[in-house]
Parts: sequence; C-alpha cells; structure tokens
Amino acid sequence: MAKKPKDIDYKNYLKLPEILSAQHRLSGAHDEMLFLIVHQTYELWFKQVLFEIDRVQEIFSHKVVADKDMRVISAALERVVEILKHLVRQVDLLETMTPLDFLDFRHVFRSASGFQSLQFRELEIRLGLRSSDRVSYDGKSYESYLSPEDQKLIRDMEKKGSLFEQVDKWLARTPFVTMGRFDFWKVYRKAVSDMVSGDRSVVMANTSLGNAARQMEINKLENVQKQFDMLFSTGGQDKAPWRLSLKALQAALLVMLYRDQPVLQAPFRILNALMDIDETMTLWRYRHALMVQRMLGMKMGSGGSSGHDYLVQTAAKNRIFIDLFALSTFMIPRSTLPKLPKDVEEKMGFRYGD
Amino acid sequence: MAKKPKDIDYKNYLKLPEILSAQHRLSGAHDEMLFLIVHQTYELWFKQVLFEIDRVQEIFSHKVVADKDMRVISAALERVVEILKHLVRQVDLLETMTPLDFLDFRHVFRSASGFQSLQFRELEIRLGLRSSDRVSYDGKSYESYLSPEDQKLIRDMEKKGSLFEQVDKWLARTPFVTMGRFDFWKVYRKAVSDMVSGDRSVVMANTSLGNAARQMEINKLENVQKQFDMLFSTGGQDKAPWRLSLKALQAALLVMLYRDQPVLQAPFRILNALMDIDETMTLWRYRHALMVQRMLGMKMGSGGSSGHDYLVQTAAKNRIFIDLFALSTFMIPRSTLPKLPKDVEEKMGFRYGD
Amino acid sequence: MAKKPKDIDYKNYLKLPEILSAQHRLSGAHDEMLFLIVHQTYELWFKQVLFEIDRVQEIFSHKVVADKDMRVISAALERVVEILKHLVRQVDLLETMTPLDFLDFRHVFRSASGFQSLQFRELEIRLGLRSSDRVSYDGKSYESYLSPEDQKLIRDMEKKGSLFEQVDKWLARTPFVTMGRFDFWKVYRKAVSDMVSGDRSVVMANTSLGNAARQMEINKLENVQKQFDMLFSTGGQDKAPWRLSLKALQAALLVMLYRDQPVLQAPFRILNALMDIDETMTLWRYRHALMVQRMLGMKMGSGGSSGHDYLVQTAAKNRIFIDLFALSTFMIPRSTLPKLPKDVEEKMGFRYGD
Amino acid sequence: MAKKPKDIDYKNYLKLPEILSAQHRLSGAHDEMLFLIVHQTYELWFKQVLFEIDRVQEIFSHKVVADKDMRVISAALERVVEILKHLVRQVDLLETMTPLDFLDFRHVFRSASGFQSLQFRELEIRLGLRSSDRVSYDGKSYESYLSPEDQKLIRDMEKKGSLFEQVDKWLARTPFVTMGRFDFWKVYRKAVSDMVSGDRSVVMANTSLGNAARQMEINKLENVQKQFDMLFSTGGQDKAPWRLSLKALQAALLVMLYRDQPVLQAPFRILNALMDIDETMTLWRYRHALMVQRMLGMKMGSGGSSGHDYLVQTAAKNRIFIDLFALSTFMIPRSTLPKLPKDVEEKMGFRYGD
Repeated sequence: MAKKPKDIDYKNYLKLPEILSAQHRLSGAHDEMLFLIVHQTYELWFKQVLFEIDRVQEIFSHKVVADKDMRVISAALERVVEILKHLVRQVDLLETMTPLDFLDFRHVFRSASGFQSLQFRELEIRLGLRSSDRVSYDGKSYESYLSPEDQKLIRDMEKKGSLFEQVDKWLARTPFVTMGRFDFWKVYRKAVSDMVSGDRSVVMANTSLGNAARQMEINKLENVQKQFDMLFSTGGQDKAPWRLSLKALQAALLVMLYRDQPVLQAPFRILNALMDIDETMTLWRYRHALMVQRMLGMKMGSGGSSGHDYLVQTAAKNRIFIDLFALSTFMIPRSTLPKLPKDVEEKMGFRYGD
Repeated sequence: MAKKPKDIDYKNYLKLPEILSAQHRLSGAHDEMLFLIVHQTYELWFKQVLFEIDRVQEIFSHKVVADKDMRVISAALERVVEILKHLVRQVDLLETMTPLDFLDFRHVFRSASGFQSLQFRELEIRLGLRSSDRVSYDGKSYESYLSPEDQKLIRDMEKKGSLFEQVDKWLARTPFVTMGRFDFWKVYRKAVSDMVSGDRSVVMANTSLGNAARQMEINKLENVQKQFDMLFSTGGQDKAPWRLSLKALQAALLVMLYRDQPVLQAPFRILNALMDIDETMTLWRYRHALMVQRMLGMKMGSGGSSGHDYLVQTAAKNRIFIDLFALSTFMIPRSTLPKLPKDVEEKMGFRYGD
Repeated sequence: MAKKPKDIDYKNYLKLPEILSAQHRLSGAHDEMLFLIVHQTYELWFKQVLFEIDRVQEIFSHKVVADKDMRVISAALERVVEILKHLVRQVDLLETMTPLDFLDFRHVFRSASGFQSLQFRELEIRLGLRSSDRVSYDGKSYESYLSPEDQKLIRDMEKKGSLFEQVDKWLARTPFVTMGRFDFWKVYRKAVSDMVSGDRSVVMANTSLGNAARQMEINKLENVQKQFDMLFSTGGQDKAPWRLSLKALQAALLVMLYRDQPVLQAPFRILNALMDIDETMTLWRYRHALMVQRMLGMKMGSGGSSGHDYLVQTAAKNRIFIDLFALSTFMIPRSTLPKLPKDVEEKMGFRYGD
Repeated sequence: MAKKPKDIDYKNYLKLPEILSAQHRLSGAHDEMLFLIVHQTYELWFKQVLFEIDRVQEIFSHKVVADKDMRVISAALERVVEILKHLVRQVDLLETMTPLDFLDFRHVFRSASGFQSLQFRELEIRLGLRSSDRVSYDGKSYESYLSPEDQKLIRDMEKKGSLFEQVDKWLARTPFVTMGRFDFWKVYRKAVSDMVSGDRSVVMANTSLGNAARQMEINKLENVQKQFDMLFSTGGQDKAPWRLSLKALQAALLVMLYRDQPVLQAPFRILNALMDIDETMTLWRYRHALMVQRMLGMKMGSGGSSGHDYLVQTAAKNRIFIDLFALSTFMIPRSTLPKLPKDVEEKMGFRYGD
C-alpha cells in the first residue's frame, strides 16, 4: 500500500456538488431535465472516449510500437466500442420523451445544438475525419455554426495527426509483407489468379450448364477479376478509391488472412476494434437521425427535416475506416491461401521453448 | 386448476428433438453453425411477432374496438417492440463472425438469402408495406427472387387488410374529432393562426432586431405557415404527401395533443408503439446493411455492395407509419392548445363517482 | 412560440465547463478516469430518477389522484425503469477495468465508497425502504459510515412520506373493492373455495390414481388452501408477513385480476412499473455485488468479501414492493374468476357513446 | 470458389418447415406461444454455446496448446460471453408476460420444467460443475427429477473431462512460473512480505496517529498477512479452499500480473473470458430467480418459492471459475511487482527483428 492522500469522501471525490448543480432548466418543462442529463452524460462519456483515444495515439506516436503495448491499445479501443454501444442504447432514454414534451422547451435553445459539441467534433477529427470530407448542413459548413473561438479550436485539432494516419503508418511498417524472399503481394496475386482461372475451368467443363448460364458464370468471374485488378492497380497514378496507402492495405490484408499467427493476433484485434468503432459511430448517427425525425417531424414534401437528412448523410459518408470494410471483398478462401514459408512463420511465433 | 393433460416432459413439450436436429451445415466451416442458429432464432421470433400482430389485427377487425381491448393491443404492440429491439441487438452475435470465417461457407447458399424470408415479407405486408412502394434489387423486384409458390403466397398476403389500413379506419372513427358543437379541426386551425400571428407581432415589435434579422424571422414564420397550409389543404384533390386519410390524421393529432384525457391514454400508447415498431424496423434494416457491408465488402468505386445499398434504401423508404412521425411538425405548444369544452372533456373521462 | 431567452450556446446551456472539469484523478492511474466518469454518470442518472419520483410523489400527495394524471405517473415510472436498466448495463463499462488496474488507484479513496451516495440512499428511502429493515455492514449500520451532516440529511428524508406509503393509501382508496352490493373479497374467497373443492373432487374421482399419488395431490391442495388461509387471515391481530394494508392488497389483487376494465388499465400499468423498479434495483444490487467480488476478490474461507456479501444481502432483503410479487401466489385462473356485476362493470368503463 | 452444392433456398437451408411447425400449444392461451419460443430460442443458443465449448475443449485436449490456437480459444469464449449476455437480456421478453397470463397455461406442463434442460445441464457439467457441489431442490438432487435415460446421459457427460480441468492442467504447464533461475513464487512471496513490512513501518512512523488508530492499521495489515499466508500454505495437506491446483493458481496469478508480456496477452484474455462466462451465468441464474418469483409468487412466510430459493442458491454456489475471482485478493500494486529477469522477458516476446 502506497502512502495515502488525505482522506476524502465520496461526494468530494466525485465533485458531486459541482456536477449535480449544473442542471439549469431554462423553462418550467419537466422533461428539460432529462434533456440536460442525457446530453451531460453523453459529454462525460465523450471525454472518456477521448481519454482512451489519447492513450492509443500516444502509443502510436512512438517510433516503434512495442509488442507489449498491443494489449493496451486493443483494451482501450475495445473499451471505446463498449462505451459507444452504451451511447447508442442511451437514445432509448431520450425517446421516453415525446415530441409534445419536447415542444415545451425546445424554444429555449434557439441556435444551440448538438452540432456545437466540440468533444464530438474532436472525436471525429482525432479518429481521422477530414474537413474536406464533411457533409454541409443547410448549404453551409458545420463550422459556420460555431463561435470564432470554437472554429479556432477545431482548426488546431485538425493540425494534429489523426488515429487514421497513425494506423496507416503503423500498418505500412509491418515487417512481414516482404520478409527475406517472401513477397506477400506476389503470392497473393498469384493465388487470386489461380482461383479465378480454376473457377473458369470448372465452369467451362460443366456440361450440365446451358450456354446462357455458362456465360453468366463467366461474366461473374470477369467482374471478380476486375475488382481485383482495381486493387492491384492501386498505387499507380491514382490511388483512389482508397484512403489507406497501398502498403497499409497490403499489411491489413495480410493481418486479416493470417490472423492466427501469434504476432498477428493483436494487430487483428486492433483492426477489428477500429471497424467496430466505425460501425458503432455510424449506427449512432443513424439512430440520432431517427430520433430527430421523431421529435421534430419533417418538412412536408421533402421526407425529412434538414437535421434528419444531414445526420443520415453523415452516417453514410463520415466513415473513417471504411477501407477495412472494403478489404472483405478481397479475401480469398482459406483453402486457396498461400502457405507461409517456414522461416517467416517461425518469426511470427514465440520461441520460448528454445 | 383445470384438468391436466397427460404428463409431458420439457424436451417433448418444446419439441427439442426436432428443433435441435435442424442444423445441417453444408460445409465443414465452424461458423456455419452460428449462421444457422442466428437465422433460425430470427425466424422463431418473426413467428412470435406475426402471432402478436395477428391478435392485434383480429381486434381491429371488429366493427367497434372495445375499450377493454385497448390494453391487449398496446401490450401486444409493446411486446413486438421489445422483440424487435432484441433482434437488432442480435446482430452483435452474428458479427462475432469475421468476414474470413464467413468466406469459408458462403458459397454453400448461392442464391439463398434473407431476401427469401417469407415471414419477414409477411411482417412487412401485414404492417402495411405496399408492393408498389418496394425498392427494387439489382433492377428487379424482390419477388423475382422468389419461387413461383412463394410469389403466390406473397400475393395472397397482400390481399388481406394491413394493420396500417385498420389503424387508419380506427382513427378515422374516433368520435371526439367532432362532438356536439366541438370541431377539433376548426379550433386547431384557429390556434395555429393565432400562434403564427402572435409570433409575427413579437418579431415586428422587437426593436433590437436589425432589418436583416427581422426579415429572417419573418421568413421562418412564413415557412411555418406554409407547412401548416400544406396540412390544411390535405383532403382536397391530392392528399399526398400523406398516406393516412385526413380524418385519421386529425384524430391522431387530437390523440397526441390531448393524450392525458383518460379515453385517449390508451390510443396514445398505441400510436407510440406503432412509431416504435416503425423506428426499430428501420434500425434493424440499417444495422443489417452495415453487417452486410462488413461481411461482403463493397464494389470498388460504388461505395457499397448491392446488398448494402439495397438495405440502406429499404431503411429510408420502407417506412409504414411515417405519417405519425410527420405529425410532430404540427404540434403546437401546450400553452396555445385550445381548451376542450366541459361536456367533451367529461365524455373523455370516467364517471364512477356518480 | 413563446418569447425567447437570450441566446445561449450548447456548451453554456449544458454547463460543460463545470461538468467536464470535475474529473480530478488523485493517482496517475489511467483507469481512475473511467472510475470517476462511471460514478458521475450514475449520480446524474440518480438525479433524474429522483426528479421523476418527485413528480410521481407530488401527484400521489393529492387527496384524489386524477384519472388524467395516471398517464403521467406511468410514463414517469416507466422512464425510471428504462434508466435503471441502463444503469445495470453500465456495469459492463466499469468491468472493462481489470482488478490490477483498479489496484493502481483504489488506495486513494480509503473510506470513500458508493455507500456514501446520498442520492442512492434518498432513492431507497423515497421508494420506501425503512431504516429498521436495513442490512448492517460489518456489524454496523450503514449510517455510521456517513458524516454527521449526511446522517442528519438521511433522517430528514426519512421523515417525508415514501412512495410505498402513498401507493398503499391510493390502493386502499380504490372504490371498486366494495361498490354497491359488490364485495370483491367475498366473491374472491368463494371462487378460491370453489376452485379448491372442485380440484379435490377431480382428484377423488380419478380412479387411475393410486393411493399414494392421490394423497400427494390432496396434500398439495391442502397446502394451496393454507396459503390462501394465510391471506384471508390477514388483517387480524397480526398482518405480517405483509407490509401493504389489507385494503391495499385487496385492491392490488382486483387490479391485477380485472386489469382489462378501462378504469383499471392505468393502475395495472403502475403496479407493473413498480414491480419492474423493484426487480431492476435488485438486479442492480446483485450485479454490483458480482463486480465488487471481481475487483476485490474475497476473503479466503468466507466465499465473499464483506462488500460482496453485504450487497448480496441487500439484493435479497431491500425489496420494497415485494408484496406485489407475492400476489402472484393468489391469482386464480381466469376461468374461475367471478364475473363483475353489470353496474360495476359499467362504472369501470367509458360512456362517451351516451 | 469451391465446387458448389446443389442450389438450396433459404427456407430449406434453415429447415424452416421443421422449425416453424414445432410450436404446439397445449392450451388455448395466447402467451403459451411466447413461452414456447422463448424456450426454444434458449435451447438453440445453448446448442451454439456447447458447439463453441466443444471447439475449445478439443484444442485444450491437445498435448500442447499451440500459440496459433490461442486466438481461436479466446474468440470462441468471447462469443460465448456475448451469447450469454443476450440470453440474460432475453428474460425481458419473457417478462412481457404477466403472472395472470402465465396462469392460463402453466397447468399444462405439470412436471416439465427448465430443470430438465439437458443442454443446460451439459453446459454446467462441461464447464466443470461437479455433481457433488450441486444444490438440492426440495431436498432431492436435481437428477431425481430426470427420466432414467436422461440420468444416464448426465452420468456419461460427467465422465468426460471438463473445461475447468483442462484449464487447470493448461495453466499448470505454463513454462514461465519457473524458468531457469527465475522462480515466480519466490519473488512474489518476497514482494508481498516487503510490501507488508513497508506498510507497517509507515504506520509505526506516523506520529499523527493515535494509539487506537495505529492499532487498527496494524490489525488490518495482520489480516492482509493472514490472507496471504493462507495462499502460501496452499499445497500442503489441505488445498482447500481452492479448487485449482497450486501450480495453476501460480500461473494464473503470473498471467494476471504480467499480462502485457506478448506471450501472456492471449492467456490473459482467456482467463478474463472464463470469468465473464462465470459471472454472466451467475447473473442469468439470478435474473431467472427473480422472474420465477414474479410469475409464481412466493410461499407466505418463507420469502420465496422453492424455485426462487433454489435458483438464488445456484447463483451463489454454482460458480466454476470462482478461484480466478479470488485471485484479485492477491494482486499487488504494479509498483511493488518484481521485475522479470531479462532472459525471461525476452522469451516472453517476439524476436522477428533478429
């Protein structure tokens, strides 16, 4: 037991006098209290999420990310996922308020809106959402709804490196993509090519297929090949539609395909957690959009309020780790997966038995 | 205690031999079992949901829906909401499977897909989704993916009355919209008009506003008025954009605005539960879309797989009780709400003290 | 639209500067932040729960609880249930912290403990937990762990009427238990007696039963009868084991058995919500007990830490509306339920068609 | 793409005709359907849980558990946790049924009960619940409620090795507890001893403490020492109160304390998942107990029905991995943790950079 600080009680430790006196309803409406507390707890949880992202970013800022830190990173990201899921469910609590109850006090915050949550903007920016990718709201950038001071804070946040960029660099440094004589990209391309031509032979040899059916199958295979060609041409002039660098893409695919190799188990968990974060934030945006529609109704003829529409668009477009989802397109069945050379596989494992 | 049937044990009561032997994996892939069980439990819950909707539809098919049955209807609909929320969460279980694991067996059901879930289609149809409102999939109607027998079953389902239509008629019969000398629509229109002109006076009298700001406020009020005019013109030549009849819309608004009157408390719960069902099904579609994207990846350049895109579209468009959401636009603050005449209010209450 | 207050932005409306600067870690441990935020959000939600209970208690303090207020009561209680369920799930977030991480900072709050949450104590007291029913902790009353000022606050809270007492009185006033010539208790006792003697005849007439089996059945019926006798003898010298008054018990049973009568639908919802609150708080205590065991381990040989044991005991004993659960024992099948006299049933319904 | 099996549609792939025709209500009661479907989905999920445990047990049955299989084990166990959490939440769905609704059909399954769920018994047995540790029900063993055939199946299950035993052996084989000159138990005992005597010096030197306060602190430290002595004396004549072997306990503590070492990251996840499984099953039992109490009421004077009491007891006693919870008692602050020798730490890491 370390030395103990002066004794402190529960109330003062948690600063409850400050926390519990910070609900100032501007109307007499009963449900304004719920509105305040829902949003205050959201902000507290955003603080926690940012605190975890801080920790992860600090580790990723090291020149070499130590293997010992892999557990810390995945524990932090998995905690973020749990928190975000909790926040999605929390919308249920806000929806115990009815639109009529909301109407009793929604005039009090004329222009105030969740829009102005700096912590949420920071979260988006820290994860890697770029200003240029933002959806505009009512024809204007979301920043135009912020105070000049807040706009400056946002610009400062944007100058710092994002988790996306750090992950991109970390992946790109993965040593196993090319190791000794092993060239993952080469063997993977060959495996894809073998798979497609194997499938083609099967189709051609299948005498029970009519001409039309055979042609359909061949067309499908050609589409598959085109998809892969698009991947293989990445890194030329134009790397679109990817945001990750080619090296990072290759490493991510390697991790996903050979995830059971001891050294790849932790990176695999990390990639999964990043996808979970992306997916859960998307879900949160969409859930939020539905809630707004329920509370505010919609403009007749448009099928949505501008708030609802905006949120649905952000759900679709503000995807940060979408490239990791796209990689599913390029997985190949385990049976066609090239076997790792013995020396590479050994380097991917432990050698405590030596 | 009634007479007891022959003793039966747990296993036979639940038909466990049948249930637990119905998982036939077509591949050797471990996760195919999860896939089977996730979908089988979905289908079991769909059966339960349909069973509850049956009950509700049976009651609504009565010429007069008895006040005693109101509790049964809302209990059934609220149970449906709980089940649907459970099914949304259940996607988490399917997502413990990774795309690579899915790849191990997804070839086994070439054309089989959740698309072909007749119970889900029945649920959509029974709630009120019209064939003409359906989103097409890869340029073809979803029916074209069904067997001829299933197409026939679908057509038969569509001939039966939907819950939407029943709710529309039930609402339209609400006696309180016009009762004696009370004409809800008239007093409501007057209240709206008073509210808007009152707001306009406040704006005009506000000397602290500059000209530009004043004009902006006036424009906003005119937009509000236009929205209401669109509502008030409903019932003329063209009732679009509403699907509910004008009488039903009026009754729904009455229920929402005067929900505390004893006789309206149960109808209010019912309208809320219908909105919850609509919202939770929407969420389920969207969650499903994200899961599909994660498992299958996406076509490069399109930003989505056709499965993902289709599901996102159904989330946006297959809304059945969307009119109830739209009504939030037309709520007016409680302070401006017309007081009910004494005799109407009395009829809305109990008189057990007499 | 009412007059608008001076424009306020999101940050100041929510008092984010105060809220987000109230996390002072006393150690350098990363996870102390999680600990602070979990507990702060718990306290914010407790505030909301108390705010809803206030509203309910205010209505129940009226001489006559208006039928119009029934919806408000059940909406408030059902919101409390949703919040409590959210708080049970929130334990998952705290459990993303491991015992070793907790050890890094648990020395900082030597004597501070959730024990000292005044709001939680207030919630217990307001719901109806009596000081005399409290479980002691380490041989001492929980109050002895509080500061003198907090002890005084607790005593003041205990002087106010509890929700339990209000519900007891409200139920006892239910007019339908005896109405005109209808005496619910009398017809219910007769129905019970008929049911038991009917079952006895069936058993005696069942020639396929052996003597031993028949005796077993008869014993069971005698046990059933004894249970009911215990209910029927309530209200004599000793009303134990009930806490509700006999009149309230009778009314609660009436509400549960005839819940579809329009006038009883809302009271039925209220009783259900009270049971949900009781059950969810119990679950919260138990979940909390498991979490404590996980974080702190247990004394060898005792199978629990004193904190764990205490919480398990409070889960078992701090039940406030347990009498409502006990009433399930005394339900009789709908087929044996006495029919209400026509005039009573009429008074239980609406008469808007008159 | 592998060769494709004959085309199969959704309905036949899932065996929906069998699954969806297996709900035979024995009463006319509406809610019997819910009861059937809740229990059938429980059983389907139990099948999935057993399927995952199978996989884990198969791997643990290998002479050496390969590092590559660590990911598979933790993924399987974490999936089990997710499923069990889903099943705990599913109790909410059953509780949408009221006790009166249950009364309508509970006579149909006189003696049938969840008790007779063989899959649940198998799960308990496979995890490691011993027959001798079982709680009796109404004075009789739970087996006496089973048919002779089922009793035989249970006995056969008990003959197979349990996951508990496999984990015990796997932990006991951990090479790092003693490696070269490193003896974990020795350095850990020394660290404990240093910690306690250091704390004692601080207390003795603290002149601001009165005699009584000082004595209290000293007593506390002696209790701490006694706890540790109990651990250190484990492995003598009597290993109670532990079920894990001493070697396994040592390894588990090593894993928990040095969890960031690459080679211990996966074992740490596995231990955590086992605790989650234990905790979630306990919660399920308790939730189930509350549900039974709500549906069936309780015997007056006893405070519980025998079903409720039994389930509460199983929640407290049927703990399989409770030793892992107990280990939290024996963690020591990271600051006092002995540093690993360089050669041991190297063996715990990867050496791909060589």
